[in-house]
Amino acid sequence: MGVEVGVLLSEIATSDTHGEDSPYFAGWKAYDEDPYDAVSNPSGVIQMGLAENQVSFDLLENYLKQHPEISNWGSGISSFRENALFQDYHGLKTFRKAMASFMEQIRGGRAKFDPDRIVLTAGATAANELLTFILADPGDALLIPTPYYPGFDRDLRWRTGVNIIPVHCNSSNGFQITVKALEEAYARAVAANIRVRGLLLTNPSNPLGTAITKTVLEEILDFAARKDIHLISDEIYSGSVFSSAEFVSMAEIIEARGYDNSDRVHIVYSLSKDLGLPGFRVGTIYSYNNRVVTTARRMSSFTLVSSQTQKMLASMLSDREFTENYIKTNRERLRKRYEYIVAGLKNAGIECLRGNAGLFCWMNLGPLLEEPTREGELSLWNLMLHEVKLNISPGSSCHCSEAGWFRVCFANMSQQTLDIALRRIQVFKEKRKTIKGQALL
Amino acid sequence: MGVEVGVLLSEIATSDTHGEDSPYFAGWKAYDEDPYDAVSNPSGVIQMGLAENQVSFDLLENYLKQHPEISNWGSGISSFRENALFQDYHGLKTFRKAMASFMEQIRGGRAKFDPDRIVLTAGATAANELLTFILADPGDALLIPTPYYPGFDRDLRWRTGVNIIPVHCNSSNGFQITVKALEEAYARAVAANIRVRGLLLTNPSNPLGTAITKTVLEEILDFAARKDIHLISDEIYSGSVFSSAEFVSMAEIIEARGYDNSDRVHIVYSLSKDLGLPGFRVGTIYSYNNRVVTTARRMSSFTLVSSQTQKMLASMLSDREFTENYIKTNRERLRKRYEYIVAGLKNAGIECLRGNAGLFCWMNLGPLLEEPTREGELSLWNLMLHEVKLNISPGSSCHCSEAGWFRVCFANMSQQTLDIALRRIQVFKEKRKTIKGQALL
Repeated sequence: MGVEVGVLLSEIATSDTHGEDSPYFAGWKAYDEDPYDAVSNPSGVIQMGLAENQVSFDLLENYLKQHPEISNWGSGISSFRENALFQDYHGLKTFRKAMASFMEQIRGGRAKFDPDRIVLTAGATAANELLTFILADPGDALLIPTPYYPGFDRDLRWRTGVNIIPVHCNSSNGFQITVKALEEAYARAVAANIRVRGLLLTNPSNPLGTAITKTVLEEILDFAARKDIHLISDEIYSGSVFSSAEFVSMAEIIEARGYDNSDRVHIVYSLSKDLGLPGFRVGTIYSYNNRVVTTARRMSSFTLVSSQTQKMLASMLSDREFTENYIKTNRERLRKRYEYIVAGLKNAGIECLRGNAGLFCWMNLGPLLEEPTREGELSLWNLMLHEVKLNISPGSSCHCSEAGWFRVCFANMSQQTLDIALRRIQVFKEKRKTIKGQALL
Repeated sequence: MGVEVGVLLSEIATSDTHGEDSPYFAGWKAYDEDPYDAVSNPSGVIQMGLAENQVSFDLLENYLKQHPEISNWGSGISSFRENALFQDYHGLKTFRKAMASFMEQIRGGRAKFDPDRIVLTAGATAANELLTFILADPGDALLIPTPYYPGFDRDLRWRTGVNIIPVHCNSSNGFQITVKALEEAYARAVAANIRVRGLLLTNPSNPLGTAITKTVLEEILDFAARKDIHLISDEIYSGSVFSSAEFVSMAEIIEARGYDNSDRVHIVYSLSKDLGLPGFRVGTIYSYNNRVVTTARRMSSFTLVSSQTQKMLASMLSDREFTENYIKTNRERLRKRYEYIVAGLKNAGIECLRGNAGLFCWMNLGPLLEEPTREGELSLWNLMLHEVKLNISPGSSCHCSEAGWFRVCFANMSQQTLDIALRRIQVFKEKRKTIKGQALL
């Protein structure tokens, strides 16, 4: 190509910083080329690297069947014109109200959300990037506790020029965030002469599948206040905590403290995980800071949600009977799935971190590593992908500082497929034991 | 607010570079506060500052009535799950194919579009920003012929840090772009030590309402090749040219030249104007450059189109009988509206630039200015808004280098409202003549 281009384009061809060449994405490719199917390809790869929620789809489908009027333009013609023309970056008022109410219900009514503080974006990917653009300048940094969602390396850094400084957590305390770890990360930034502008939490955590405790959340907010930095609380799995009581939102901490320090707090939410609608691209920023709300709303012009989708979901989420049943049933089903996979793994002699949320468990294959390094982990990951035919995500792709941990998704498949996956792991574990036994002889 | 913030947030409160304080947007506010309504507010402001296409909505509505299955999830349950989960940044293959075909039809079959080069974005706003991110670095510049869409000042510059260097066009040749004007703008950049990375055309032009001639397009492509810069051709009004034969796409020039220099050419399109669906947020980048396609696709993660909307529009745009009739009828209706308003203005003694496209005309009120300056223009604009009660857009908000030109939208209202607007202008013009006459006595 003759014509000169910008840095973002130049770097794409030569670098893997966008994550697409990482194991996290390479596993998807292997799956795409040889996908498991009970009938046509029973020895194919089972996709356990995709945090998708399919366990409650029947509830959505039933609702749409009972309420065809919420999606059908064939009859509701008069509203089509108005809706198709609606591109106001405030979003549909009815939808923002429904979103605020849904977020309150998920938190068991223990936190309030003002619809006027809700900024809509085309997914949480855009919401997190947008907040980064607003809160930090190129060269500045955000602190992020590890292990974290590999996509952040691309989403938060690529176009903003902002750095991520990992806050290293480890298994000694169940990967909980500590003030010591936060201070260490902050000190590293200071030593490198990098300005820290914020801390991004994922609560509940992806990939850990755990909600952060109230005490830890309070310590984190105090830390942010002490350093005068922002706090982004990404709560996209808040409706996927197995019991409402086990989740504390940063919104509850803020309310309990009488909105003290609230102008540094911003919550990200999405319907991609809890409702299982990633294709519809509905994300949101909820900020207690007026200027952030105003700026985020203006900036959302680059990433608006289709008014067609806003309209349909406004109707669905305004139906309290539906949402209450959905939230309750979805939580129960996820818990059941979680307990099932954890028991199955335990049966095979594999331990997981005790989780209470999300669409995945955090599995410890440390004892199976040839060597306790990133290379050892990737070598085992490779074996799991190509021999056991399971695509799971290695902890190193999430910047985990300990080798041997893997994220295993359980909500993107049928119970039957999950059983096949567990059987494969058991067989693998048995074989491994035998080989190890022989090696010892 | 105590906590420190980034530059983008800091500047929002103190600057009007995002256009929201400009007359372009201030007019909207005046309209919002006192909107015309034939019955309830007959002396209210008529909105003529909104480039919205409402003249062909009945065609869309009829289609949806005849084909309820394309929007109704109530019956097509099996596809709901698959669709809701679809978040691949390639977009639905059926939708990309339908978009490519629609773009070909608009160009009378004189240019081909490969569905695999279509990158979907949530509107053209995102498409233009995304291309700017890819092609230029902070501090670099894009050349843009004036007058241009005021939103570019925000969309192309705000988050990218890229500059816009205006290419000044004027009424002496009907505001056509000349090589001399391009060279002058380029030389200004060189003198200021700013690196020019591209040229952004809007063809047909907003606000001029004119399509660029083949000869001028060829000169522009040669200029871009000579300077080794990119060429973004924003063709979002291509289906709103009054006759297909009057529009030449940059795609046709590229094909006629055997794809010579094609790797510097990128076309932006959208369904917001030609189909009148701004709320659905469907934009697209079509690039002849493989690396730009790949990078734009990855970057589109920040601005994906709802899969629900992709699915519905894929069905509609795949119906050739519908699209052919829509394109033809829409062109005819827009031409009729255009000729009607131009004749009405001529009747009042007001001239417009001879246009052949778009949802607006470019009206010359130069003879009515007290003084031929930006201040004179804004003073007349203010009079038009608060006394004549018409919200039109002053040319200065589009960086027009000549005072007295205004963009007047005609497709976002009923014929009845347009008649009221024309009558108001006639009365105003009469009064003005009388006052001027008296002053002369």
